[in-house]
Amino acid sequence: MEGEGPLGELFDHVTEDDLLGKKSWEQAEQQMLQDACQLAANKANISMNDVDLIFSGDLLNQIVSSSFASRQLDRPYMGLFSACASWAQALLLAATMVDGNYFDKVMAAVCSHHNTAERQYRFPVEFGNQRPPTAQWTVTGAGAALIESGDGEGPRLTHGTIGRVVDMGVKDPYDMGSAMAPAAADTIIQHFEDTGRKPEDYDLILTGDLSRVGLPICSDLLIRAGYDAGDRLEDCGIMIYDNEKQDVLAGASGAGCSAVVFNAVIYPRLIRKEIHRVLFVATGSLHSPLTFEQGETMPCIAHAVVWEA
Amino acid sequence: MEGEGPLGELFDHVTEDDLLGKKSWEQAEQQMLQDACQLAANKANISMNDVDLIFSGDLLNQIVSSSFASRQLDRPYMGLFSACASWAQALLLAATMVDGNYFDKVMAAVCSHHNTAERQYRFPVEFGNQRPPTAQWTVTGAGAALIESGDGEGPRLTHGTIGRVVDMGVKDPYDMGSAMAPAAADTIIQHFEDTGRKPEDYDLILTGDLSRVGLPICSDLLIRAGYDAGDRLEDCGIMIYDNEKQDVLAGASGAGCSAVVFNAVIYPRLIRKEIHRVLFVATGSLHSPLTFEQGETMPCIAHAVVWEA
Repeated sequence: MEGEGPLGELFDHVTEDDLLGKKSWEQAEQQMLQDACQLAANKANISMNDVDLIFSGDLLNQIVSSSFASRQLDRPYMGLFSACASWAQALLLAATMVDGNYFDKVMAAVCSHHNTAERQYRFPVEFGNQRPPTAQWTVTGAGAALIESGDGEGPRLTHGTIGRVVDMGVKDPYDMGSAMAPAAADTIIQHFEDTGRKPEDYDLILTGDLSRVGLPICSDLLIRAGYDAGDRLEDCGIMIYDNEKQDVLAGASGAGCSAVVFNAVIYPRLIRKEIHRVLFVATGSLHSPLTFEQGETMPCIAHAVVWEA
Repeated sequence: MEGEGPLGELFDHVTEDDLLGKKSWEQAEQQMLQDACQLAANKANISMNDVDLIFSGDLLNQIVSSSFASRQLDRPYMGLFSACASWAQALLLAATMVDGNYFDKVMAAVCSHHNTAERQYRFPVEFGNQRPPTAQWTVTGAGAALIESGDGEGPRLTHGTIGRVVDMGVKDPYDMGSAMAPAAADTIIQHFEDTGRKPEDYDLILTGDLSRVGLPICSDLLIRAGYDAGDRLEDCGIMIYDNEKQDVLAGASGAGCSAVVFNAVIYPRLIRKEIHRVLFVATGSLHSPLTFEQGETMPCIAHAVVWEA
């Protein structure tokens, strides 16, 4: 499905088999993450043994995709969790470790798998339950990045803004866009306040993944705070699938979504200097099936990093 | 149970009600973590609003205890997961953020609750299943620490060693000590190799939580590598309960175990300069009930930090 979408040709690797030849989707998800890390190392012309540290997260209980992939990669590893905001959190922590001279080469990696996420968070996919128009489709994908200090060439991660948990009372796990939009706006506004910047200072303000439901809400909240992002505001969850031809309802989600969109689309545009400064804001809903069943609302978070060409 | 153990009088707060007046054990666990953070701020004579960032983790799916507590605390938050190794991971990340001058005051916090962990990982406690002698008892407890740069007075966190995932093929979730011991040894040996130190350079090498099964295995592995820790090697999972009077089998576990033992027992001994240098090594098993049911072995990890008086 990701390969058939408008970004399909830009991905490094698209597989036809959502099991990757494994016995379970969970094993496939681990393998996908491991392959992404290995590919990132290959592209940087280093061996995995040269990687000092891996920050990784995913959506599964006990983030087993990250832990099992890290077992195979055999490098120092720290697991993290902020649901679909994990990609920004991993990038931010990796960049901090390099910038602070604690390590030379730090990898950030995340993944999600539609079928493992569906059966954990909602229903087994074989059940074929109906989904409301506000629902988002969890991306099957994995992305990794190697962060290292450099000579000034190539895109740089220059800023990070760590979000706080925002919960506006949404209880519907089929409407994560509405739940996450206020968290995205909160982090973007905090970023502008901290840096003194405005939307015009960015070529792109990229959220992931608010979907067609959440992005307009985020846009409105920013305008109310005095920041009109206009067309600069885009969303990974809207970009990855073709809404006309692919039945994904409000758009995409999943920790892997913003990772594959950023890596395959945005980072190359920074390299080519088609865009010069990007505020990337990954968003996550921090609920669990258990908290949903206990009647709790959905706490959400967004973490942001700035990339410059 | 924790209050009735040999360390009971040293804890800041012991509650008789494992629901803390809430409707669910999950809500109680969140409240316990939130209370621990607030107490740490109070002890540091600051308001929670002065805290720049919280690193927090716990054992529950999607680390909901940490996320929901952070919602109430309303500060920038990053979730982490390394099961019962989370306390060392949180301390290490918090200290890095302060040492690198990214933030002034960073909180590390973790928790676990016996009843929420049992029903998630194994069986509902009402079921009263039998447990083998190698099983460990998940501690109900929460600990928090405020890390800030200081004037040279008071204990300091000076080193961190990030572990890699070690999996020796143990499949039995009722024998986590055997599974985690090689991970603990791996990190301790790496720490000695990185720093050129030996066991004699430490007054205490404190693991958490290997239990009576895992600690001797770790000790043997260290001896084989040329590091005889002898009596310096102790374990939080052995210290917290009275093995004669409290039926906890091999000992204790849970992300909260090493946090409450370190905070209530070890940190005060550092303040009083009864001990001068501690290598604290938190250990975690990174399996999930799903990976267990799919027949996978248990990947484990240990992260270490050094505290000096």
